[in-house]
Amino acid sequence: MHHMSQNLAYSQTLILSDFSNTRTQMGALRLPSLTSIFAISSGRSSLFLRRSKQLHVRKLTSTTKIFAQSTPATEVAPPESNQKPLSQEQGITPRSQDFNAWYLDVISMAELADYGPVRGTMVIRPYGYAIWEAIQDYLNVKFKETGHSNMYFPQFIPYSFIEKEASHVEGFSPELALVTVGGGKELEEKLVVRPTSETIVNHMFTQWIHSYRDLPLMINQWANVTRWEMRTKPFIRTLEFLWQEGHTAHATLEEAEKEAMQMIDVYTKFSYEEAAIPVIPGRKSRVETFAGADKTYTIEAMMGDRKALQAGTSHNLGQNFSRAFGTQFADENGQRQHVWQTSWAISTRFVGGIIMTHGDDAGLMLPPRLASVQVVIVPIWKKANEKNEVLDAALSIKDVLHTAGIKVKLDDSDQRTPGWKFNFWEMKGVPLRIEIGPRDVSSKSVVVSRRDIPGKPGKVFGISMEPSVLIPYVKEKLEEIQLSLLEKATSFRDSNIVDVSSYDELKEAISQGKWARGPWVGSDEDELKVKEETGATIRCFPFEQPQGPKKCLMTGTPADEVAIFAKSY
Amino acid sequence: MHHMSQNLAYSQTLILSDFSNTRTQMGALRLPSLTSIFAISSGRSSLFLRRSKQLHVRKLTSTTKIFAQSTPATEVAPPESNQKPLSQEQGITPRSQDFNAWYLDVISMAELADYGPVRGTMVIRPYGYAIWEAIQDYLNVKFKETGHSNMYFPQFIPYSFIEKEASHVEGFSPELALVTVGGGKELEEKLVVRPTSETIVNHMFTQWIHSYRDLPLMINQWANVTRWEMRTKPFIRTLEFLWQEGHTAHATLEEAEKEAMQMIDVYTKFSYEEAAIPVIPGRKSRVETFAGADKTYTIEAMMGDRKALQAGTSHNLGQNFSRAFGTQFADENGQRQHVWQTSWAISTRFVGGIIMTHGDDAGLMLPPRLASVQVVIVPIWKKANEKNEVLDAALSIKDVLHTAGIKVKLDDSDQRTPGWKFNFWEMKGVPLRIEIGPRDVSSKSVVVSRRDIPGKPGKVFGISMEPSVLIPYVKEKLEEIQLSLLEKATSFRDSNIVDVSSYDELKEAISQGKWARGPWVGSDEDELKVKEETGATIRCFPFEQPQGPKKCLMTGTPADEVAIFAKSY
Repeated sequence: MHHMSQNLAYSQTLILSDFSNTRTQMGALRLPSLTSIFAISSGRSSLFLRRSKQLHVRKLTSTTKIFAQSTPATEVAPPESNQKPLSQEQGITPRSQDFNAWYLDVISMAELADYGPVRGTMVIRPYGYAIWEAIQDYLNVKFKETGHSNMYFPQFIPYSFIEKEASHVEGFSPELALVTVGGGKELEEKLVVRPTSETIVNHMFTQWIHSYRDLPLMINQWANVTRWEMRTKPFIRTLEFLWQEGHTAHATLEEAEKEAMQMIDVYTKFSYEEAAIPVIPGRKSRVETFAGADKTYTIEAMMGDRKALQAGTSHNLGQNFSRAFGTQFADENGQRQHVWQTSWAISTRFVGGIIMTHGDDAGLMLPPRLASVQVVIVPIWKKANEKNEVLDAALSIKDVLHTAGIKVKLDDSDQRTPGWKFNFWEMKGVPLRIEIGPRDVSSKSVVVSRRDIPGKPGKVFGISMEPSVLIPYVKEKLEEIQLSLLEKATSFRDSNIVDVSSYDELKEAISQGKWARGPWVGSDEDELKVKEETGATIRCFPFEQPQGPKKCLMTGTPADEVAIFAKSY
Repeated sequence: MHHMSQNLAYSQTLILSDFSNTRTQMGALRLPSLTSIFAISSGRSSLFLRRSKQLHVRKLTSTTKIFAQSTPATEVAPPESNQKPLSQEQGITPRSQDFNAWYLDVISMAELADYGPVRGTMVIRPYGYAIWEAIQDYLNVKFKETGHSNMYFPQFIPYSFIEKEASHVEGFSPELALVTVGGGKELEEKLVVRPTSETIVNHMFTQWIHSYRDLPLMINQWANVTRWEMRTKPFIRTLEFLWQEGHTAHATLEEAEKEAMQMIDVYTKFSYEEAAIPVIPGRKSRVETFAGADKTYTIEAMMGDRKALQAGTSHNLGQNFSRAFGTQFADENGQRQHVWQTSWAISTRFVGGIIMTHGDDAGLMLPPRLASVQVVIVPIWKKANEKNEVLDAALSIKDVLHTAGIKVKLDDSDQRTPGWKFNFWEMKGVPLRIEIGPRDVSSKSVVVSRRDIPGKPGKVFGISMEPSVLIPYVKEKLEEIQLSLLEKATSFRDSNIVDVSSYDELKEAISQGKWARGPWVGSDEDELKVKEETGATIRCFPFEQPQGPKKCLMTGTPADEVAIFAKSY
């Protein structure tokens, strides 16, 4: 535990405190080294590739041809490009060989999503949608616990609304989808399909807020939003996506700031505890601040290819929208004042972040707390007379685990071999597999395999079927996997962040594909210069700052804060 | 119980069987007559009107001026029409005086919804959205129990898709919203904002379904949909609304038919057991069948003004869409066949149905099982020294009920009188109120008032605060109210359905505002003639049919079935 970063220590405290309330206490961690995992993993991948040819799944086009096409010459993809013959089935491209192709393969073969008929749109399939539902289930409770109510605003916004807040229109107007015809008639005022809802929210808040007694007003909506993106990628950047957007109005700047910080903290906790993603929370630079916000807070995650993903944001909007829309309240002295506001969002992009953080050459790897199938049971028999007793035992184990609140699936299909099923459910990222054959039935025990430790090291034989043994064993393993995924991702992240003290060091780190962390008081122009010359942007000024005097890596003048630079999605 | 209709008997069986599993058994029912309720209710309304002037809520324009305007001259409502000065606050228009004005008043004053800035759109406010969330929570579980998975399809559909199924395009093309500009450029093919998703679903199903092993494919999505309606009304018919749409594909017609019937049964059970709405399930006539379906099943509800509301539908789509989109599978003999399909939906319209079924002159009345606040506690004190002990007791009662799983709210604000709070929470439709004053604290008891029985008859004094007494008492009362609402609505419905055997009798019944039920084998032309001459349409051929020989009320020829005619929303 000596080399653990501050963030991981933080996250473990969170998790352990949570466990002590609601889950069984965990034993000590026994983690394999990263090298041993990857060595085994790549050793197995050839087996996987061979077997996976049998899988009846269609691959997405693994390059940018359809989805990420940069010129929207035609908005509707030709149907034939989406209808590949089954013979094109292949295994998953190795992650190290082509990260983007690997990502698209996992999405396709694990049946997470598919391309919609309109360029840049995505169909979220049941197995992918279940991840989003798990995210919703957790956040929805947290939002209500922190005093927010759900509601719903119309998605059509008069075009004139978008123009009211100057930086907002500048930020969003290039990405708008416009409805110009309704009911067969040309509309007098064209309508924007919401790219975000601050404008219509303020239009309504202005009608609902009269006095300080109406504050704070704290709401959230789960909705679809549309941004006409030119370069798209499933989950990460799609023309339409799903998200939640919180909107609040307060009587003071301090309250609004506290709320914006509270919500980025909710997102941070969610990322560490549920998604096992060691995000770095921090403040955006002025250049990267949301169009219409005074301050933007972000959680930045390192993907498997070491690019950064902005995984959630929380904005202190100041009085920008309340001034544009005249959202005022009478304070306790009867004085009219503009409200102070926040907004904050997490989207289906987060699903992409989970895939790109934990996945490996065998496919998806889901953190147990977000997995819709936590345990898959694969029964094994050779002779017909073995089948019944094996299936009976498997079914009874399924019932035992299900009753204990574990999300369990029994794959009892006749049409596939156990080997095929092993590969299939590994590709689907199911955290634990229980194997049961005739000899296990005789000894009243099962074999348990961990998805995150491939091959023999992750396999334990002879676990008793006895519910009093099996249930706590499975629960403990799931918790171990949950924490192990977080530890692995944290080690990976920390070994790929370089502390730099000069622009040359920054360029060197970025050119190696790493993140660079260094003191910064540069101007907006300096920041844009870094972007132009290295492709990296300031991801955030992290909340956790090193102590002591610092000098800006660019200007050499005294700096209060370090910033993190990285290439990003 | 002698005059109970078949439907109510059915519903009671359902409810009682459900209770026996999960809830406490109910005692005998003690229901006041309808007349006594309405007499008391209207007696109280003047008090309410006087007091409610103090409520800080803004009324919606109570006629059709903005929302239901029939000419969409301008699509964006002028902002001043949405910003009435506070002095315009009034009580709720009596239901008997103007049902439509009453409905809009309830929506406004109970803070269920508000007008959006675009004509015909609606903002669903937290208290109204909570009803939709309760509907979602119940149905989502039922859909999963019956084998459906949630997923998400893009809302933008290429215009050419809509044209592929002949009757579908005829039905929907007048109501489409079209996106013609994206990212600042005119699109080559205009995009339809989904009015329903059969076309895009079939486009994707065609790619996912290959063999009989891929069937049945059973999915659902929770989504927003857009229909460019000319005459709109909050919840009942809005330009954009929220719904769930189920879509399934099967190997045989029989399976599809069974699925369509299963889902209308889920809706029926939901309506009776959760919403306390005694819907009549049945089959739509050919004229009223969904554009693209072979058969449409419906649940028809009678509103407080005796107009019918189509509250949910389930369609057997036959092979109409699978032929249009080439959705085929190889059967067990390797033969290519088109799949058989269904779709089914319930929308935010149902919230309007709840308001118009149960509400009275005092405002909203929510069935306990869908109420986000089932019990409101109103503490009463006069002297400052009474306040602490009363609040302490109220808080402890709140904790007791909350821990017992009852949705409880304590209204402890200093700024309003108890009388104001009584009216406010009655208007909000909270099923039970607990009053507690200094004398109650001394006697360790509370006063419990039922929302559905106004005044003294609904008030019981001296209920012990002892959790072992109070919890079962409150639970039993909530169940009594739940069933009482259903009984009242069922009596009202049955006393307003007239059995007719001739067209003259039908016309007479309709002119009295009632529903007419009579044998029918008329042609489509006969049906349209009835609509033209009376304003009534066939709501359904109910599943429950009288025995014995019948003659068509229009043609006099032998008829197999009775149909129900009514004016409708």
